[in-house]
Amino acid sequence: MSSYGKLYGVSLGPGDPELMTRKAWKLLNGSTHWAYPIKRKGSDSYALDILHRAGLKLPERLTPLVFPMTHDHEKLAAYWLRAAQTVLEFIHRGEDVLFLVEGDASTYSTFGHLARTLTSLDDRIPVEIVAGVSSFNAAAADLQLPLADTDDTLAIIPAGYGVKMLDRLLVDFDTLVLLKVKPVLESVLDLLEQKGLLASSAFIEKAGTPDERVVHNLTELRGTQVNYLSLLLVRNHHRVRGEMIRGCRKKSVA
Amino acid sequence: MSSYGKLYGVSLGPGDPELMTRKAWKLLNGSTHWAYPIKRKGSDSYALDILHRAGLKLPERLTPLVFPMTHDHEKLAAYWLRAAQTVLEFIHRGEDVLFLVEGDASTYSTFGHLARTLTSLDDRIPVEIVAGVSSFNAAAADLQLPLADTDDTLAIIPAGYGVKMLDRLLVDFDTLVLLKVKPVLESVLDLLEQKGLLASSAFIEKAGTPDERVVHNLTELRGTQVNYLSLLLVRNHHRVRGEMIRGCRKKSVA
Repeated sequence: MSSYGKLYGVSLGPGDPELMTRKAWKLLNGSTHWAYPIKRKGSDSYALDILHRAGLKLPERLTPLVFPMTHDHEKLAAYWLRAAQTVLEFIHRGEDVLFLVEGDASTYSTFGHLARTLTSLDDRIPVEIVAGVSSFNAAAADLQLPLADTDDTLAIIPAGYGVKMLDRLLVDFDTLVLLKVKPVLESVLDLLEQKGLLASSAFIEKAGTPDERVVHNLTELRGTQVNYLSLLLVRNHHRVRGEMIRGCRKKSVA
Repeated sequence: MSSYGKLYGVSLGPGDPELMTRKAWKLLNGSTHWAYPIKRKGSDSYALDILHRAGLKLPERLTPLVFPMTHDHEKLAAYWLRAAQTVLEFIHRGEDVLFLVEGDASTYSTFGHLARTLTSLDDRIPVEIVAGVSSFNAAAADLQLPLADTDDTLAIIPAGYGVKMLDRLLVDFDTLVLLKVKPVLESVLDLLEQKGLLASSAFIEKAGTPDERVVHNLTELRGTQVNYLSLLLVRNHHRVRGEMIRGCRKKSVA
């Protein structure tokens, strides 16, 4: 066991190399092996691009791992297994492997799948996750809108679940972060207009990257095409809150 | 306008100085004025403690700003105004002020209140927010549980809204992050037990700080006292999902 290497999930933040943590930076500088996800053999890696822009020297060994863009679970599981087997060999030889992750490694990342598949093959493998800045944290910062103020509730959801669900969530949530809005943009704009929430919402494309685009006046988006990596931050200021149970007011009677 | 200083909201991450971003680190090292929130005159600052542990040299000027622990909105607004007026003076003199924020500046932070009050006094004041790692990102990393896998929905809510709301949210959410669980812990544990979710959930106290405590076996928490800064991460693996509208499958009909 002591001769095993360790698998690190290293969050790189949303794309601006300055938004990497000091911990990620140190690990990357002291490492000899990076692994990173690609969509298909030979395709580019955005994670690697962040480190290129950061001016980091490439390590001795670079291992691309294929995680295809599909929703076919069995197909995916086969790729996860292949990736895990590749990494396992290095770990068993005592080599630490840093798996590069855009944004935060616990948030919409392939790292969890890789780590779980790996430890299902050998549960003695040490795994460490280095947390990072999520794209929605960067989005809120650049939009200068809060994700959550005191006692606020926050929902982060792929917009593709449709406007009926979004409408329902307006009862319980002060902020909605709608990811991947592209295919449902018009219907979401309709809902926000109906609910009087256009003015308190904002749109951001490629948050935290050099190509970031911010739109505060959402009516400008009508009839336009937006990038797949875009989100809407909705501040639901009309919400009427229920009473809260607080530590200092009532004892634990829920 | 060009002679104005700038207000920065500098996210410091959850408490481990290594989880600060490189951008925050550079700004802090090059700055002459830090402002930071305290609960009352003379009380300690956790944000300052992070920087002390990071080994950073204190700048020439340190300005504590009082943000009391109260839910009285008028009282709070008076304190925000006083804090903004204090900062305004420095900004007008051309001095940059770095406001220190634990975790992420857009997430349950006093920074938004300060910035909005400040720009309501003078809307020409430049404000910049440096995004950071939230405590719940650090929690998920250290628990090695995903906040969100592909297509997952994620809710972050103060647990004090009570178990009826939590129960309702299990229909729509794959992950619930329950903040400030202390006063409602027993009733939340009852709900999780009832729903068969105890095994897929975990508890963490002071996530990302040197005093972090992790509990995976939640029944251990029964009848115990927990810290106010604690959260429950609930993975709701029983959820049955609705159909999604995806960019590549259907055209935009929601």
